[in-house]
Amino acid sequence: MAEPDDRLQPIPETVAETSGYELESVEHEVMEALAAGDLPRARALIEPLHYADLADLLQHLPADDRRVLVQLLGDDLDPDMLSELDESIRDDIIEQLGLAQVAAAVAELDTDDAVDFIEELDEEEQRQLLEAMPESDRALIEQALAFPEDSAGRLMQREVVRIPAFWDVGQTVDYLRQNADREEEVLPEIFYVIFVVDPHHRPVGQVSLSRLLRTRRTVKIADIMETDMKVIAAATDQEEVAFLFRQRDLVSAPVVDEAGRLVGAITIDDVVDVIHEENEEDLMRMGGVSEDDLYSAAVDTAKSRFTWLFVNLCTAIIASLVIGLFESTIEQVVALAVLMPIVASMGGNAGTQTLTVAVRALATRELSSTNALRVIGKEVLVGSFNGVIFAVITALVAWLWFGNTEIALIIGAAMVANLVIAAFAGSTIPILLERLGVDPAIASTVFLTTVTDVVGFLAFLGLAAWFLL
Amino acid sequence: MAEPDDRLQPIPETVAETSGYELESVEHEVMEALAAGDLPRARALIEPLHYADLADLLQHLPADDRRVLVQLLGDDLDPDMLSELDESIRDDIIEQLGLAQVAAAVAELDTDDAVDFIEELDEEEQRQLLEAMPESDRALIEQALAFPEDSAGRLMQREVVRIPAFWDVGQTVDYLRQNADREEEVLPEIFYVIFVVDPHHRPVGQVSLSRLLRTRRTVKIADIMETDMKVIAAATDQEEVAFLFRQRDLVSAPVVDEAGRLVGAITIDDVVDVIHEENEEDLMRMGGVSEDDLYSAAVDTAKSRFTWLFVNLCTAIIASLVIGLFESTIEQVVALAVLMPIVASMGGNAGTQTLTVAVRALATRELSSTNALRVIGKEVLVGSFNGVIFAVITALVAWLWFGNTEIALIIGAAMVANLVIAAFAGSTIPILLERLGVDPAIASTVFLTTVTDVVGFLAFLGLAAWFLL
Repeated sequence: MAEPDDRLQPIPETVAETSGYELESVEHEVMEALAAGDLPRARALIEPLHYADLADLLQHLPADDRRVLVQLLGDDLDPDMLSELDESIRDDIIEQLGLAQVAAAVAELDTDDAVDFIEELDEEEQRQLLEAMPESDRALIEQALAFPEDSAGRLMQREVVRIPAFWDVGQTVDYLRQNADREEEVLPEIFYVIFVVDPHHRPVGQVSLSRLLRTRRTVKIADIMETDMKVIAAATDQEEVAFLFRQRDLVSAPVVDEAGRLVGAITIDDVVDVIHEENEEDLMRMGGVSEDDLYSAAVDTAKSRFTWLFVNLCTAIIASLVIGLFESTIEQVVALAVLMPIVASMGGNAGTQTLTVAVRALATRELSSTNALRVIGKEVLVGSFNGVIFAVITALVAWLWFGNTEIALIIGAAMVANLVIAAFAGSTIPILLERLGVDPAIASTVFLTTVTDVVGFLAFLGLAAWFLL
Repeated sequence: MAEPDDRLQPIPETVAETSGYELESVEHEVMEALAAGDLPRARALIEPLHYADLADLLQHLPADDRRVLVQLLGDDLDPDMLSELDESIRDDIIEQLGLAQVAAAVAELDTDDAVDFIEELDEEEQRQLLEAMPESDRALIEQALAFPEDSAGRLMQREVVRIPAFWDVGQTVDYLRQNADREEEVLPEIFYVIFVVDPHHRPVGQVSLSRLLRTRRTVKIADIMETDMKVIAAATDQEEVAFLFRQRDLVSAPVVDEAGRLVGAITIDDVVDVIHEENEEDLMRMGGVSEDDLYSAAVDTAKSRFTWLFVNLCTAIIASLVIGLFESTIEQVVALAVLMPIVASMGGNAGTQTLTVAVRALATRELSSTNALRVIGKEVLVGSFNGVIFAVITALVAWLWFGNTEIALIIGAAMVANLVIAAFAGSTIPILLERLGVDPAIASTVFLTTVTDVVGFLAFLGLAAWFLL
């Protein structure tokens, strides 16, 4: 009802105004400015960008344009931008800037972000970079790097707020206010919970800041702390950490060393990237791609994809060997050669459906030893249903095409057999691989295709050799 | 140095103690107890479980065991558990409990969790459930349901803390403490930031609780608030929201209505599930599975997978039609029938690698109109490299096998052609589909396989017909 009295007050931009399309138009303008040699304009265009947008832009640009922009930015390069970059682009920029400048930038990052950045470098680069960094930062980062790769110790923030249980709310708030004024940074920049530790530095509870803020100064911390929390060992794998955060809807969890002492904290924002990475890894592996290689050089990408293709070539040759057994049959009834890929291909597709569900369910732990047999049984049933339906359809197609009832019946029978076997193999292979400690996302597809190709060709051509000749 | 004076104080469990294996052993024990008819023991086993673990356990058990457990739990059923369940299991449990009991449970949830639960029901169930709920909860939930599905409005928490910019830290803290004592819940249970609004309820800034706690009481909110924040329109798609949180490392963002007024807040823990869902959806779609169907009945699963298989059957038939063109060629040189699946299969696999990278890069917006041509060019180059290498290997295999130089040269040439085309198709198809507004994760594979099969058979058999006969 009131008249607007703040019309000139700037309102923060809303998302609709800054969608991906806007970044794309900025990209095109930057490329135009660079093509025209108008460096001041290019600089003016990129200056207002958020560091994450700038990282995206640098990745999208051709290498030459990127180098010009990095040159332009010079010392103004936001250190946070560096940790948003993909590996190959980052290496390129580090090379251009030189280690000294990169070290200065990395020193400005929080320890967890700095570790995130440094752990991706090779050992020699790590050593050089750490040497170029200030003493105090180096020690913290070296401690973090001492934890195994992809562990909670690497993921955690080392700066945490820890207080004893016998304090009251007032003491806690005063402690926070006092330390905020001190020169050296004792408290983390942003935190959501305060950890309560016993005299041995072991976490015994936590207090969320919203709880602390809503409680009167005289109340004891021991009375408002939550004790029902998950404590994470520093050596825990990050995948396990991500699972826990997601399953329990955690926002923050204390990390302890082997003696159970609080050494850091993991917060949900660190875990988001892990969840994303782990999902991406699974998707890539199922597609036969070992790593995210959008930005690496064509030769490197070709090399990294070679192994997968070579393994698949061996699979294809095995399938061909099976066909080779029936050369004389095919010579007499060429229709078999025309129809045989249908059986193999349908088996592969049906098996992949089952495989995808099984690999996913293993990753999210929805598939366990308790229900494995039931899941396999259900998949075989699904395979039988669709096997029969597609047998009828395919037999009809074959009969209309070649007018041969026997071939129609044979392809129908082979279809049922292959779809049932595909369902069995698609659900069993990932479970077995997981038991053997092999990542089911990587290896399952090869085994599955071998099975569905061999069974597909063998059933169809074998039945044909038996009945037709 | 101090002597342990708290040896008997319970230490919270660490993750190592509660890995997936422990839940599995509980599951086996529960199943044994149920099989032995020992209901008190089954109840004792599940009582201490976290609601998320209980949800997992219920999903892993056979339907009969699950119903017995739900019966056992009765009124003690944790409402939070309900929102952790998969669709088919949840429907089953709702049916067993009856709407009245479910409504009472849902009313205890936070609005965002309640909305999360209710939106999955069909319209009639929604109506009945809402009618069975207390008036005040119903209104809040109905408001949320008025926003489009998968929008920021559905995702957000409606309870937010909002203060004017002219307050100081002391006033803010007092406000929080006073409201904490009030009967009705004005403040959210847990929150991480406080939003600063202008007289029109438009967000102008935010203050993180850690900042608030570290600042003296006399400091003005206007002096410590961050104004550089992302404001999200309530109609924004959740995928866009997830992208933004991940790209910008956000922890909390205000949501506004069309007039720009603050109507709620989205926090990172809500977004974690969205990120997970979106990733899962992509993975499933690329595997030809329309939905997560681990728990649905075999008939339903078979039906849901039929469409994908049918589309693939059509693709396979097209490939067979191509082979059919060369029946007489195959009749004369049966070796062609033996070798032809190798060319098609390698094209399919190489194309899938490219496709996976492209689909992923589109989803994460690393692939944009700025770099699309460069990515396609690079993929074609990768296809050429591997095409030549695999042409040599395959030609060698064919020559050793059939001792025929011409066939060896022909399969080599066909391999190069198919791998180059596969790379081109694998990168172009998803980009085109995205431009057309079709989800590239769903449809790309079908188009790709059609291309690689047709080109594979056509190139190999065509060259053979040309040169051999």
